[in-house]
Amino acid sequence: MIDKTSIIYPNVIMGKNVEVQPYVILGMPTANDNDKLIIGDNSIIRSHTVIYAGCEIGNNFNCGHGVRIRENVKIGNNSQIGTNSQLEGYITIGNNAKIHTNVHIGQKSEIGNNVFIAPGVVLTNVLHPLCPEAKKCLKGATIKDGVKIGANSTVNPGIIINENVLVGSGSVVAHDIEKNNVVIGNPAKVVKSIYDLKCPFGIIERPYFEYMEND
Amino acid sequence: MIDKTSIIYPNVIMGKNVEVQPYVILGMPTANDNDKLIIGDNSIIRSHTVIYAGCEIGNNFNCGHGVRIRENVKIGNNSQIGTNSQLEGYITIGNNAKIHTNVHIGQKSEIGNNVFIAPGVVLTNVLHPLCPEAKKCLKGATIKDGVKIGANSTVNPGIIINENVLVGSGSVVAHDIEKNNVVIGNPAKVVKSIYDLKCPFGIIERPYFEYMEND
Amino acid sequence: MIDKTSIIYPNVIMGKNVEVQPYVILGMPTANDNDKLIIGDNSIIRSHTVIYAGCEIGNNFNCGHGVRIRENVKIGNNSQIGTNSQLEGYITIGNNAKIHTNVHIGQKSEIGNNVFIAPGVVLTNVLHPLCPEAKKCLKGATIKDGVKIGANSTVNPGIIINENVLVGSGSVVAHDIEKNNVVIGNPAKVVKSIYDLKCPFGIIERPYFEYMEND
Repeated sequence: MIDKTSIIYPNVIMGKNVEVQPYVILGMPTANDNDKLIIGDNSIIRSHTVIYAGCEIGNNFNCGHGVRIRENVKIGNNSQIGTNSQLEGYITIGNNAKIHTNVHIGQKSEIGNNVFIAPGVVLTNVLHPLCPEAKKCLKGATIKDGVKIGANSTVNPGIIINENVLVGSGSVVAHDIEKNNVVIGNPAKVVKSIYDLKCPFGIIERPYFEYMEND
Repeated sequence: MIDKTSIIYPNVIMGKNVEVQPYVILGMPTANDNDKLIIGDNSIIRSHTVIYAGCEIGNNFNCGHGVRIRENVKIGNNSQIGTNSQLEGYITIGNNAKIHTNVHIGQKSEIGNNVFIAPGVVLTNVLHPLCPEAKKCLKGATIKDGVKIGANSTVNPGIIINENVLVGSGSVVAHDIEKNNVVIGNPAKVVKSIYDLKCPFGIIERPYFEYMEND
Repeated sequence: MIDKTSIIYPNVIMGKNVEVQPYVILGMPTANDNDKLIIGDNSIIRSHTVIYAGCEIGNNFNCGHGVRIRENVKIGNNSQIGTNSQLEGYITIGNNAKIHTNVHIGQKSEIGNNVFIAPGVVLTNVLHPLCPEAKKCLKGATIKDGVKIGANSTVNPGIIINENVLVGSGSVVAHDIEKNNVVIGNPAKVVKSIYDLKCPFGIIERPYFEYMEND
């Protein structure tokens, strides 16, 4: 299950039944010699992926091809990171998160449970790039449980997107968003509640009905 | 022409005069043991690319670095897929298609002949991500012959973009587009006909004049 | 410092103290057999990166994972190119440039000193893709010193963004921008001067104060 062309550093603590495909690098050393990389049971790490030491990843991790995960990233159980996406380090991601292709998550971002992030999304973390004091205010976005972010959207630094929000494709989220709203545009504005959404195909009455139980 | 570090599974049926660069994986196995990967004559597969079994690719295929093509993709002759782009599976692409860098094409998308897709474009396939019935309505975009989609644009699920349409950079295509139009914005709206476009450099009278023959 | 799985062609002129990580390809041959690849001192080339012959890169080059740099690219000193980004060839980049993740820079682009380009940005170079004369007008953007371009923004072909401009996230830059302005939107419009920007965290009075010395 561990391809012979993969490079596994001694700091890796591998769960049971993990598949590691060719040309993968696991446990890439960091400045801290004590950093370990922990990967949970029943995980799959697809080819050409690099994961640094100092990360802790839960069970059933589903990792695409060419993924790059820098140091100090924590990922819960049953989560997936799509092909060619990068987690820049110092990030927490909950359980059952689906992060898709070509996504960039900046340092110091927090992502909850049951979150969906579509292809091409960027979570930024610097308001004024190249400001001489930029490192002092570095802060990524906070994406709460059940949030869904549409393709090619951008979330500005330090923004909080609250529970169950749906962000339409190509949006720029420049202000915090209250829970259970649908937002679109640049800057993203509330257009309706997620409970107002209907299925145009007649398959289900409301796509996000199940969240109503908890409100 | 086949680099010795590339991994070629026995299911690959390789055309004549194919170049396979280092760290490529061809014929990545799928759930179906009978799946083959067919690659046409005179093709080039650049380094770090992965193509799954179950794909059928025509002649003169020009494939970038770090491309990921999942199972059940059909690509015609003389087409190219740019560096770090992903075709997610169950996709058809015609002849002479130019798909550029960092593009994501979702499952169940259909792309015609002579199509141009610029860097950073995403074709999505789920209207309401995380809806419990999302798999039942999964449908990508239909991109007809001669369509050109500008950089960082997003096309919503199930959208049809008809022949020869030009989509401006950074657009979100949320409605079907009639043929021969230029659209821009979020949501993308018609701003003119492609026949109204003139060359600002004085090199050619009209950039898309040749399509008029067929209308 | 040179990993044994990396592929280094004989045309590479390597500076002192260069780290080359696994699965890298340096000096990828071009149509011109005389092309060399020059890499400056104290550089780091992270895993899975490909750099073609015909490039000249300065000292202290900081190169991410899975970067692709085509032929005839010149990069100054102390610059960095982020993970999975592509420089398409025939590009010049100055000193102290920070080009981030998943960026695409089209052929014939010019980038100055102290430039910041955020994740997902695309610099395009063809106004009318698939025009039969498209190769005759191919021209990328010109990004002057001190410019900062926000995440997922797109810059149209031949556009000039002058000194110190800040482009907000998700913008489409369709017209030249005068120096020292902040622009946002599609198409990007001037909303204020960079000297009007204040630090919302109270860490510094003005983030771009230092540029005022030179005006």
